[in-house]
Amino acid sequence: MDAEAAKLLGAGLAAIGAGVAAVGVGNVFGSFLESALRNPSAADGQQGRLFIGFAAAELLGLLAFVVAMILIFVA
Amino acid sequence: MDAEAAKLLGAGLAAIGAGVAAVGVGNVFGSFLESALRNPSAADGQQGRLFIGFAAAELLGLLAFVVAMILIFVA
Amino acid sequence: MDAEAAKLLGAGLAAIGAGVAAVGVGNVFGSFLESALRNPSAADGQQGRLFIGFAAAELLGLLAFVVAMILIFVA
Repeated sequence: MDAEAAKLLGAGLAAIGAGVAAVGVGNVFGSFLESALRNPSAADGQQGRLFIGFAAAELLGLLAFVVAMILIFVA
Repeated sequence: MDAEAAKLLGAGLAAIGAGVAAVGVGNVFGSFLESALRNPSAADGQQGRLFIGFAAAELLGLLAFVVAMILIFVA
Repeated sequence: MDAEAAKLLGAGLAAIGAGVAAVGVGNVFGSFLESALRNPSAADGQQGRLFIGFAAAELLGLLAFVVAMILIFVA
């Protein structure tokens, strides 16, 4: 396999990482919503931490997407 | 393997990422619906956060799809 | 496969690691939020441990991203 082929294959592999990160994001929001519906009055007070957790998980997925883009267009 | 073959294979791998992201989206909606049916009166108040969580997880799946499209048509 | 090809392929594999780490981050925040909404008055007291757990899981994802970057630009 030559380098040109490997970087296209590598970009496809990196895109798997972006998809898997969505499981983490879904877990943060899923758990929040499940409990927010049980105790709606406390939901607003935890919204800050919800967004920190969401951003942290989303960041890792976006990094995997960045790796895919670098492999296609830069490497 | 030459580059033409690798980019088609890479696009298939990227599509795995799009599929896995559906687990995250399903987790958001699954948890929401489970609790919304237990406490229907509070469901409307959480709808905004439901769509933020859905959009965040869906985005990562769409990014994986974008990588697949770029590999097929652009790279 | 030559070394140039293998390092680009390795970068794509490393990006999967970054995505999988998001599942761990999502697990930390998801469990915290779920229980914080059940007992909101105790949530602030556990925030320090929340961020230690978040940082530990996030670090591993960032390390996987660093490995991908090193493989592309340094190795």
